[in-house]
Amino acid sequence: MPRLNRIVETALYVDDLDRARTFYEDKLGLAPLLRTKTLLAYDVGGANVLLLFQRGASLQTQSSPGGTIPPHDGSGPLHIAFAIDTDELPAWEAKLKGLGIVVEGRMQWERGSTSLYFRDPDGHLLELATPGLWRTY
Amino acid sequence: MPRLNRIVETALYVDDLDRARTFYEDKLGLAPLLRTKTLLAYDVGGANVLLLFQRGASLQTQSSPGGTIPPHDGSGPLHIAFAIDTDELPAWEAKLKGLGIVVEGRMQWERGSTSLYFRDPDGHLLELATPGLWRTY
Repeated sequence: MPRLNRIVETALYVDDLDRARTFYEDKLGLAPLLRTKTLLAYDVGGANVLLLFQRGASLQTQSSPGGTIPPHDGSGPLHIAFAIDTDELPAWEAKLKGLGIVVEGRMQWERGSTSLYFRDPDGHLLELATPGLWRTY
Repeated sequence: MPRLNRIVETALYVDDLDRARTFYEDKLGLAPLLRTKTLLAYDVGGANVLLLFQRGASLQTQSSPGGTIPPHDGSGPLHIAFAIDTDELPAWEAKLKGLGIVVEGRMQWERGSTSLYFRDPDGHLLELATPGLWRTY
């Protein structure tokens, strides 16, 4: 039985790519992999790629010499969680405060993990989670 | 500067959790981590967690002794990509065919990766991608 090894791409849909770029690249410090008129792609720790699509720009099948990418799009305040080191939690709290990013929620999980919740400029609910949240993390 | 190590949770929003369970667990073979009335969580290769939320069930702040989780939700045919081994691509194609899952698009990327695109029961655009898509993958 073939396996799914990991989630290599996670996508969010945003109203303003420049605003999203400022947030994810300048503020959160993600390294850019690709920038087009309708897409920003960021490396997350060498493990995953975060895709930020201009909302509404991927509603048509994309055809190229390599093949086709079917339509997709999204709305609503989606949720994703980033893994952070436990010993960097204080630095993240200080950084968010320094950036004027409001921590909207906080969880202390049974297995020992701490999560901080805040919003990106499109209202997506981002989480920073230290290890000990899931039995696999 | 504190780091984001990876995307530990990726969320999709679905209309029918039982239908989604059948698809992701029975058909795609993901291992369950948690099942509640409004959430299914799956391990993906020990690296990431796929969260499937009942659409509309996370629109209120969730409070518990551990803290609070702010509201989130989503609609639209979202996109995520799973990493698969290159040598398992034929097995995945055979498996999808056997399950009656239509491959709606296919891409041959410049760096050598192949992607297959298909839909989950909620219309989310899923991708299976072999290595060589990004400079980090």
